Amino acid sequence: MEFKTMILGHLLMLSLALNVGLLYRDYIGNGKQKFQEFFSSENKLKNASLITNRDANNVVESTVLETEETSSSKAVDETIDLDHGDPTMYERYWQKMGDKTTVLIPGWRFISYFSDGNNICWFLEPEFANAIIRLHKLVGNAVTENRYIVVGTGSTQLLQAVLYAVSPPNATEPIDVVSAAPFYSSYPLITDFLKSGLYKWGGDANKFKKDKPYIELVTSPNNPDGFSRDAVVNRDQGILIHDLAYYWPQYTSISYTADHDIMLFTVSKSTGHAGTRLGWALVKDQDIAKKMTEFVMLSTIGVSKESQIRAAKILQVVSDSHEYRGDFNEGEAFFEHSHKLVERRWKQLRDAVSNVKIFSLPEFPLWHCTFTNSSFTTQPAFAWLKCESEIDDCESFLRHHKIRTRGGKHFGDDEKYVRISVLPRDKIFDQFIKRLSSISSS
Amino acid sequence: MEFKTMILGHLLMLSLALNVGLLYRDYIGNGKQKFQEFFSSENKLKNASLITNRDANNVVESTVLETEETSSSKAVDETIDLDHGDPTMYERYWQKMGDKTTVLIPGWRFISYFSDGNNICWFLEPEFANAIIRLHKLVGNAVTENRYIVVGTGSTQLLQAVLYAVSPPNATEPIDVVSAAPFYSSYPLITDFLKSGLYKWGGDANKFKKDKPYIELVTSPNNPDGFSRDAVVNRDQGILIHDLAYYWPQYTSISYTADHDIMLFTVSKSTGHAGTRLGWALVKDQDIAKKMTEFVMLSTIGVSKESQIRAAKILQVVSDSHEYRGDFNEGEAFFEHSHKLVERRWKQLRDAVSNVKIFSLPEFPLWHCTFTNSSFTTQPAFAWLKCESEIDDCESFLRHHKIRTRGGKHFGDDEKYVRISVLPRDKIFDQFIKRLSSISSS
Repeated sequence: MEFKTMILGHLLMLSLALNVGLLYRDYIGNGKQKFQEFFSSENKLKNASLITNRDANNVVESTVLETEETSSSKAVDETIDLDHGDPTMYERYWQKMGDKTTVLIPGWRFISYFSDGNNICWFLEPEFANAIIRLHKLVGNAVTENRYIVVGTGSTQLLQAVLYAVSPPNATEPIDVVSAAPFYSSYPLITDFLKSGLYKWGGDANKFKKDKPYIELVTSPNNPDGFSRDAVVNRDQGILIHDLAYYWPQYTSISYTADHDIMLFTVSKSTGHAGTRLGWALVKDQDIAKKMTEFVMLSTIGVSKESQIRAAKILQVVSDSHEYRGDFNEGEAFFEHSHKLVERRWKQLRDAVSNVKIFSLPEFPLWHCTFTNSSFTTQPAFAWLKCESEIDDCESFLRHHKIRTRGGKHFGDDEKYVRISVLPRDKIFDQFIKRLSSISSS
Repeated sequence: MEFKTMILGHLLMLSLALNVGLLYRDYIGNGKQKFQEFFSSENKLKNASLITNRDANNVVESTVLETEETSSSKAVDETIDLDHGDPTMYERYWQKMGDKTTVLIPGWRFISYFSDGNNICWFLEPEFANAIIRLHKLVGNAVTENRYIVVGTGSTQLLQAVLYAVSPPNATEPIDVVSAAPFYSSYPLITDFLKSGLYKWGGDANKFKKDKPYIELVTSPNNPDGFSRDAVVNRDQGILIHDLAYYWPQYTSISYTADHDIMLFTVSKSTGHAGTRLGWALVKDQDIAKKMTEFVMLSTIGVSKESQIRAAKILQVVSDSHEYRGDFNEGEAFFEHSHKLVERRWKQLRDAVSNVKIFSLPEFPLWHCTFTNSSFTTQPAFAWLKCESEIDDCESFLRHHKIRTRGGKHFGDDEKYVRISVLPRDKIFDQFIKRLSSISSS
């Protein structure tokens, strides 16, 4: 029977390879149009903006409107859009991996709402849970022992699930949610858009002085500025949520195994599959895991099983690329490969910034990484660029030079700063560096 | 070039067929264990309950707890769980369809957040949108011309998106959300769980007397009782949301092409793929479509693209099964096949109820269906069973007989009623009929 399975397995691999080959030929050959259609979104993306917060206090203003406006003037507007963090840099790597990450889903799968009725998080696919645990063990970035895993439609949904889970249900007023500036620009929006009576945005954690319960969001490495962080309020009545979306070795040294009560991760920033909309939480307390599960149930009755099964496969291949290097080509171990990509981009960026002289970038300490067993400085997914000299509004200044970024005020900081995505496709990033290099202060 | 594509297409089909064949053999043969693992969830499901609302006023009480309790006593508890509407009845049909609905997703797809930057709903996959329009045109159950499509993680998320979109953003108090009793038991929970300042549950629409703006949820056919419905409040300041999840020909006659301002549909109830977590809204007003898109962006930054691409395939096959009957076996046209299944179940159920004498079921009028060009009475996805005689608490009565249902009070109605899912797997439904038939009033 073992032999039969092996044969079947080999046949299947052959067949899959054939399929992928055919698909590829179809795309490249006669089907080029389809392929281009898929990738032509690159042009559209240049004019589309992900998060609406042109004004953190005005949730109503929608980027959809901006997208339309810019679309109509697309021909004349060649703006490079690095406002949002669309991680399309990763596309090339996954194309190289070919059929290794291809999933095949028969029509009869995933009829039921349930994945595992015995798990607290009953909509979590066991295969995905296992792939998460394996990857954390490999990288050493977070403790998974004695933790509950809660899956969400991206870590955005999970953040809201945590807020729901830890907010006092019967308090007379909503609990304050704070984060040290510069903080992720979506935090205020996500916290306040439904005007919840359970929680409300309380602003910069550094300025939080109330003698009351509070929730502090600790993003480490931080979005937008890339620095490693600890909680800043540190008072008795605080509940900490650690957003570790970027705590992966392509961005930063794995200097400790995170062991916090509530930790959030996302596929978007670890493997680059943002379209899969999948995140996970590692939660110490059973009651919090239960209430988070309840939130996801009330919000979306669970999470796409197709996404989970595909992400499981992708995480498995990431682990395989390190644990079974013989099955991969030289330099294809995922974190090594993507670390080099990001490293090269930061070198290009620092060179350009140093030549132009009117900008500056954060400097990061050199830290030992237990995963790579080497030392390197943080190379974040975003560059937190500062306009020096007399430029007060850096976003407008760059927009004038047809580079679209997100200004400091959206992150609770000064307008002299902007956040720039370092993860677009190669072509866009190269164009950006060229344009940045051509800017003079005059 | 046309010919080359055709050849490539045929080869691909062959290869896919080979793949599916192999997978099937793997499952049935040596891989039987895996297959059984997948299907063993059936046993677990018997003890798991989907929606938490044991008490509509108490969101905190979680079914997860019940799941645990019942799991531990699983060996002695052979309760048949028809509390939730898990549509596993459909599994068998999709198994029969074999490779027709299999999708193959290469690892490099769906990296980006964006599906179509030119669409208001920029995370909607064009392929899914096209499949939706084609299906509605085939069935004739809803107008798609001059409508915006907004995709959501199930219609549950879309309902919240609509509430967000139509609630006055700066009102001094939240707008009332009402629905005529018996109403879907999740409506109060979904509306109130975040204690939003934008909207709040206002209860039974029949009792709504305030001279103020309101939102009325009109579910037709209705969950739980299956009746076709119109709005009941009918006042100037009302905003109507039509939940048409069950307006498909396996459940009811398609007697008109729905043309409402805001209409909600879901894959779970149309094709049975509840695990895919996918719904869509047809929206007349552009501003509402934009604000709904904004909600889904803030809530989950879009919707799983894997789910969308798979649902697209499934909806295409549903349409194909009617439009290209020659490519399918006799009796395999989707709506015909599922109509017959549900019809048979209702016959079994009515026979049992008529024999036992202590229960009653709703009677539905005979209506002409434009899709089937025949007349039939509604055969809902849920049975709204009434305990006659002296049984006041029908849920408890049936639970004593080890049949788990959802009692009338969760739907804003009398405890003499229970809602029973008609869509479990064959085996479960047959067991249920057997058990129901054996009940005597003594």
